[in-house]
Amino acid sequence: MTDTINHQVLLVEKPAGKLGPEHFKLIDGPMPAPKDGEALLRVRYISLDAANRAWMHGATYRSAVEANSVMAGGGIAEVVSSHSDALKPGDIVFGDTGWQNYAAVPVKHLTKMPRMEPLTHLLSIYGIAGLTAYFGLLDVGKPKQGETVVVSAAAGSVGSIVGQIAKLKGCRVVGIAGGADKCQWLTSELGFDAAVDYKDGAVFKALKAAAPDGIDVYFDNVGGDILEAVLPQMNLNGRIACCGAISQYDGAPSATGPRGVPGLIVVKRLTMQGFIVMDYMKQRDQALSDLQSWVSSGKIKVLEDVINGIENTPQALIGLLAGENRGKRMVKV
Amino acid sequence: MTDTINHQVLLVEKPAGKLGPEHFKLIDGPMPAPKDGEALLRVRYISLDAANRAWMHGATYRSAVEANSVMAGGGIAEVVSSHSDALKPGDIVFGDTGWQNYAAVPVKHLTKMPRMEPLTHLLSIYGIAGLTAYFGLLDVGKPKQGETVVVSAAAGSVGSIVGQIAKLKGCRVVGIAGGADKCQWLTSELGFDAAVDYKDGAVFKALKAAAPDGIDVYFDNVGGDILEAVLPQMNLNGRIACCGAISQYDGAPSATGPRGVPGLIVVKRLTMQGFIVMDYMKQRDQALSDLQSWVSSGKIKVLEDVINGIENTPQALIGLLAGENRGKRMVKV
Repeated sequence: MTDTINHQVLLVEKPAGKLGPEHFKLIDGPMPAPKDGEALLRVRYISLDAANRAWMHGATYRSAVEANSVMAGGGIAEVVSSHSDALKPGDIVFGDTGWQNYAAVPVKHLTKMPRMEPLTHLLSIYGIAGLTAYFGLLDVGKPKQGETVVVSAAAGSVGSIVGQIAKLKGCRVVGIAGGADKCQWLTSELGFDAAVDYKDGAVFKALKAAAPDGIDVYFDNVGGDILEAVLPQMNLNGRIACCGAISQYDGAPSATGPRGVPGLIVVKRLTMQGFIVMDYMKQRDQALSDLQSWVSSGKIKVLEDVINGIENTPQALIGLLAGENRGKRMVKV
Repeated sequence: MTDTINHQVLLVEKPAGKLGPEHFKLIDGPMPAPKDGEALLRVRYISLDAANRAWMHGATYRSAVEANSVMAGGGIAEVVSSHSDALKPGDIVFGDTGWQNYAAVPVKHLTKMPRMEPLTHLLSIYGIAGLTAYFGLLDVGKPKQGETVVVSAAAGSVGSIVGQIAKLKGCRVVGIAGGADKCQWLTSELGFDAAVDYKDGAVFKALKAAAPDGIDVYFDNVGGDILEAVLPQMNLNGRIACCGAISQYDGAPSATGPRGVPGLIVVKRLTMQGFIVMDYMKQRDQALSDLQSWVSSGKIKVLEDVINGIENTPQALIGLLAGENRGKRMVKV
């Protein structure tokens, strides 16, 4: 390894409103020098997630991303050198590498991953996206055969898997996504029973038509107006798995919350439960085993949206927040 | 029985905004004539509940109260005559008698109650209020010893029992109530560890001082701004038992919901769960047995606010919605 330059994307300023390219800067940084207990990593794929944007607001389940530092983000990387016995050169790991070619990361914060083809699956179906869909739907949403499951951001990395798992559990599945093309794709390619285009306006009415028997499980990736449209259509004892609030991330914090909370939660005896996939890591092996068998039997299609070049990472995130991706978006470094 | 006049309180108009005496009318109605399967009841005590107001908005977990009909409401009554073998004259029952001296009610909608002294306890600690507190706190809130439990409408029929049960389960208990007198009463008479006067303004700050270790369980009777102040102070994996939304009942429906939903629910892995005490009726005996032992050992004080005269029922409800009661309010007919 003779490289001495490390391309890095900095967050130069925390956005107060909509995220734009002006908030980032690409620099030629120094090669990181790993300290004791750290490994030097060559980043292969950078994961793009709506949560990246949420971290810019402040502390969430992790500390806030600070201005003028390398933008934080998960990635799949190869170990170049290791100051720890736990990893050796050539190992594949997942961790918070940040948006850069090379990173020095404490080994205890890295998860060793199997080397597989394609490596991208480690960020999609076998990564955070797949596990989030699996645990959020099955453990929090608890769908029963014949029930109606609605998922928002349905064409996204998590939503597209949620819908497919719900289908194979025997549910009626309705996806909410932006644009007629995406909606068409959900029903024709992914087997969703119906799809609602939230850009088309009348979400409440379209949802009513798509879920005529009401909604038993809502997997919420977006919060906001869509949650508000879903609430009155929930059935008695319905479950809402709160996975994220994309609609609230890219801009100033919302001045209001969804109407119907908590009134409809009482009347309909609903359970709204937030979860973070990290809390389920002890049950990871079972999930991966299920996901692998569904993928290999063709019951689940893996959808990836791979963009080339670290210099395109800011635009890839901005586009993701605008909903332009289908399936798991990542950047090949 | 020689009475032929049945004093009845009618809801003459559904209130669009704040409930006032002009929405009711006292009339001398006819004695009801029970049909097959019905019992003729002499009403002894009428229960006053914030839910009475919610029923005027429209269907909740029961159908809406219609204008120009006898105001709906639960009551304790004595059976005068019965067209069913299930009840005999002199039996004590609980049911939706409405606001009147006499009612004919289908026997299948009545719950036979033990004759006890005082009979008022059948509407307070051994009635809906006590059971709501018991199941909502223990089954939904699931407080553990040493945790912090916050309850709103803490001086009300349900809240005053919630706080006392939480204390005997070894929790730190904070009540939210309106007015310094009520707050003083919660700590000095009912054993709450602290109380927050929401009429005093800065609820968020006062709550922070009263619950310095954060909030593990929030028993929500009110919704609205107080829920919004509680949400950011919830601890990881906290539980919110959604019992009611008093703040939303007496006026036009709120234009907004609480900020922080669903964002904080995700980040803090909260569970918000609505419940209706009727769903727990199969477990009623265990609850009553626990409540009886706590009352007889003096661990729980029973608080009742009995108003005399059916003509005072409208004002009693209006006052309850304004928060003037301490403990369970009812009208002695």
